[in-house]
Amino acid sequence: MRLEVLPVEGIGDVTAGDDLAELITSAAPWLADGDVLVVTSKIVSKAEGRLVEVPADGPERDDARLRVLESETARVVARRGPTTIVQTHHGFVMAAAGIDASNVDKTHLVLLPVGPDASAQALRAAFAARGLDVAVIISDTMGRAWRNGLTDVALGAAGIEALLDHRGQVDPYGNELSLTQMAVVDELSAAAELVKGKCDRVPVAVVRGYPYRPDTTGAGASVLIRDSESDMFRLGTAEARTQGLLDAAHLPDVASPAGPEAAPRAAALAAELGTPGTGIAEEGGAVRLTPAGPGPADLVRLGTDAARIRAALAAEGLSSGITIDDAGLTLTFGAS
Amino acid sequence: MRLEVLPVEGIGDVTAGDDLAELITSAAPWLADGDVLVVTSKIVSKAEGRLVEVPADGPERDDARLRVLESETARVVARRGPTTIVQTHHGFVMAAAGIDASNVDKTHLVLLPVGPDASAQALRAAFAARGLDVAVIISDTMGRAWRNGLTDVALGAAGIEALLDHRGQVDPYGNELSLTQMAVVDELSAAAELVKGKCDRVPVAVVRGYPYRPDTTGAGASVLIRDSESDMFRLGTAEARTQGLLDAAHLPDVASPAGPEAAPRAAALAAELGTPGTGIAEEGGAVRLTPAGPGPADLVRLGTDAARIRAALAAEGLSSGITIDDAGLTLTFGAS
Repeated sequence: MRLEVLPVEGIGDVTAGDDLAELITSAAPWLADGDVLVVTSKIVSKAEGRLVEVPADGPERDDARLRVLESETARVVARRGPTTIVQTHHGFVMAAAGIDASNVDKTHLVLLPVGPDASAQALRAAFAARGLDVAVIISDTMGRAWRNGLTDVALGAAGIEALLDHRGQVDPYGNELSLTQMAVVDELSAAAELVKGKCDRVPVAVVRGYPYRPDTTGAGASVLIRDSESDMFRLGTAEARTQGLLDAAHLPDVASPAGPEAAPRAAALAAELGTPGTGIAEEGGAVRLTPAGPGPADLVRLGTDAARIRAALAAEGLSSGITIDDAGLTLTFGAS
Repeated sequence: MRLEVLPVEGIGDVTAGDDLAELITSAAPWLADGDVLVVTSKIVSKAEGRLVEVPADGPERDDARLRVLESETARVVARRGPTTIVQTHHGFVMAAAGIDASNVDKTHLVLLPVGPDASAQALRAAFAARGLDVAVIISDTMGRAWRNGLTDVALGAAGIEALLDHRGQVDPYGNELSLTQMAVVDELSAAAELVKGKCDRVPVAVVRGYPYRPDTTGAGASVLIRDSESDMFRLGTAEARTQGLLDAAHLPDVASPAGPEAAPRAAALAAELGTPGTGIAEEGGAVRLTPAGPGPADLVRLGTDAARIRAALAAEGLSSGITIDDAGLTLTFGAS
């Protein structure tokens, strides 16, 4: 296998309503069956009219930008200073929802295509109508959680399987590969970016010679979006820590079911976190706490201690209830 | 610009002490000045003897794996089920610290090279000694926070700038690009992976035709490691939420400095979260809370309420202190 990565030059400005297949085939009459066409999402957005008008400068521009960001955002993932990382309605996690003010005049912002997989399919169909059997990837530039610098990845794909699944294959040593699914459309997008550049109007590149697997499911690049169930980084660290503090502030008095380990653990935490001298007694799956001294202040301190013990239990995934009386309080644990 | 991505076939097994430059130039006598050589980290590790012996199966193997993971880990980022994402001593955030059991016999695990940039430099120097001026990238396969599927990225690099900085460039519309630094060595690694495959012993690929910028600083790929200051995802969401709960459990009695907004905000939160009837009075930058009723239980309840109010303040970044007396308590805020 050897690949070629070829820029498609001379496409020029794209405006709403333009026929991208026409523009691309005119600029690259050398396109051939089996090529993978990687198209920068920006020209897809422009052809589809996904632009919004905004003031060219001033606070009005900032306000308009914020409103656009809000409308493109499904939920905020993390914020720090001027950076807002959100999940878009498509499911992509990107800074500023992929809204872009570059390579467009100052009175417009470019939004992501509404349905990048559908856009890729339409484009692939338009090439097919011209007798060309090509795979189409719609790419954009994204940041990464833990690495500096950006890379291009696939927002949409048609005619190509996004993931290449090595699971079940056996290596030369007899080890079965267990976890290896390669995001080949992201790698193709990255390869294409290398010949595109940012300011020189090369919005399309072709990867030739890659033996891609035809997409049999029509799922496109959507399979690359991690669902929230398996997303271990749904929130920024600061945002999630804040959520923990808020959860501590709103612990309900009633316990959800916890296992039999909860009461002994509560007693241990009471010994660790409680005021010295606090009465601690495990009784029938509950923990009875009584004040460390005879004064009214000892009762208040017992209350603050109990809230801290309950937060520490919650940190270990143990739900507790609390019942307060004139002699102290009882930490309870729901039947499990 | 047009790129070619060429596999280097026939390298065969690599073992400790092997001369990689010799193996690669023998397999690819067609290497030329200006090529970018992308070398899978595994063969670098093998040549450098970065293997550890482990039992071939059974619980002993699992135990040994855990010990190796621990020694390769600088800190744990997130855990879920069998998955542990850690930051390695190099600074890479990867599942299982990049330890790999594939493409090696069952009694060994392959660790990452100790210094991938130094390994890349040594390899580049070895090519230079053969009269070849090539850039060298050492790549590995990594997952991403929010996207399914893996891609290859650069662990080490020599002779090539890892980041291509477009900042300050002006697009055809006169907009200055503000944030665009492309991680080109990661994109080159991804392009190379497309011709490598996982089980077919193609551990090296060459990207030909890429006009890379010579690395003038010698920083290699280490510039791609996000420092902890700017890392918004230092912990998994569950881990960070747990940290928030633990912080609530361990709030110190003494406040760090907070601004003048702290006391009114504390009063508002006391009204929201406190037991109805609680006495709330702002006094000289502090907030005095007195029990909602005359009984001892009201004092305990005042204590639990106060802890919850303080957690809610902490969630807003407001540090509070607490002083308890026989008539109630005072939330204090350090001078700012």
